Amino acid sequence: MNYKIIIEYEGTRYNGWQRQKNAADTIQNIIENAVYEITGERAEVNGSGRTDAGVHALGQTANFKLTRECADIMDKLNNILPADIRIIHCQAVDDRFHARLSAKGKTYIYKIDTGKKPNVFTRRTVQHFPYDIDMEGIKKAAGYMVGEKDFKAFCSNKRIKKSTVRNVYSIDIEQEGTEITFTFKGNGFLYNMVRIMTGTLLDAGTGKFPPEYVKQIILSRDRSKAGITMPPRGLTLKSVDY
Amino acid sequence: MNYKIIIEYEGTRYNGWQRQKNAADTIQNIIENAVYEITGERAEVNGSGRTDAGVHALGQTANFKLTRECADIMDKLNNILPADIRIIHCQAVDDRFHARLSAKGKTYIYKIDTGKKPNVFTRRTVQHFPYDIDMEGIKKAAGYMVGEKDFKAFCSNKRIKKSTVRNVYSIDIEQEGTEITFTFKGNGFLYNMVRIMTGTLLDAGTGKFPPEYVKQIILSRDRSKAGITMPPRGLTLKSVDY
Repeated sequence: MNYKIIIEYEGTRYNGWQRQKNAADTIQNIIENAVYEITGERAEVNGSGRTDAGVHALGQTANFKLTRECADIMDKLNNILPADIRIIHCQAVDDRFHARLSAKGKTYIYKIDTGKKPNVFTRRTVQHFPYDIDMEGIKKAAGYMVGEKDFKAFCSNKRIKKSTVRNVYSIDIEQEGTEITFTFKGNGFLYNMVRIMTGTLLDAGTGKFPPEYVKQIILSRDRSKAGITMPPRGLTLKSVDY
Repeated sequence: MNYKIIIEYEGTRYNGWQRQKNAADTIQNIIENAVYEITGERAEVNGSGRTDAGVHALGQTANFKLTRECADIMDKLNNILPADIRIIHCQAVDDRFHARLSAKGKTYIYKIDTGKKPNVFTRRTVQHFPYDIDMEGIKKAAGYMVGEKDFKAFCSNKRIKKSTVRNVYSIDIEQEGTEITFTFKGNGFLYNMVRIMTGTLLDAGTGKFPPEYVKQIILSRDRSKAGITMPPRGLTLKSVDY
């Protein structure tokens, strides 16, 4: 029996998604242990991809295989999972479904708060960024990032050997009060790519360089030309498309 | 110099507002210690009223007196206060201003989430309440609570000797997705009054009794007739009027 699950988590106190031998506090570890506690089976819970320490999810997707069916497995898992990890959807799927290999696209959001003071209530999921943003400029800069391009300049892994070409379908930037939400949709994202894209867009938005300079950054394929890797707290994996 | 401050806090990990001799983790304690650290003066920080353990504030108001002026006191305090307590406003005011005695009214909000699963991101400030709510019925019931009335039935302090008459100016109930926000405005509220009013309204909203029964509960002046005291996490002191 192959189960597909959709998981919501506040990543603040976790060491990311990926199971680690020497760190028990990863989300994959915790879910695998919960599955074992309930079913007695040591299943591998395949995520659609890693999320880094401190990154959140509204729609991380994973699958795992059990030799037997397990009734009400979602409720049973939620009963023992900590309050900052919830399975929000569970269904039995075709044996060939694999959360990472079957994924067709992903949507990430990055949130910043441009208010003068860090917000007490949103501080875990919204990055404080108390600077004036030129919304026209930042949207123009984002336009240059959309499409099928080589995003090597936006990848933290310098020794990457696989292709760094990705297709970014869209980047939407919306302002509500002092909060700005960046929504990135694409067929896939490189290591730290969304956080570096956001850092670069914020450089354009604060006038550090003109929006057009993004074209040169992309062409350079040089990580040092792009903006900083924004902190993990503002990043959320919103959904995975299949 | 009399300073008026407005404070935002996430009450989750605190033992309420009020200073206690044997508990260091109250918000008043922490702010008084911060004032001392910065000014060397042991000032009493008078809040507009207590908030219970786990209750939040968007606009708790307080005042304290210093013998000398202190430049940039708000920024200095924020630099040493924990991330879940922020001073969002500070001004020098007339010596006669007293945050509790000068208060003319207060606004509280109580939030519930009627979704099937507890929300990972709002769980600290929104109470999970996964039941169907009759919005017409609950608004009708709230109407009976508005006005100058004896709210003894909605007070946890059974031995209260002072007047239990309060004037509730308005109760607004708004739904957005699965979240329902109750906004209570009044000239003052008794101990646990907002949480008991919310518990009572939810009884009406889930059909435990008809909306009209609220009139009888008020007339009874009997705490046992009203609904439960809702948990603190959903409650936030929104603002204090002067």
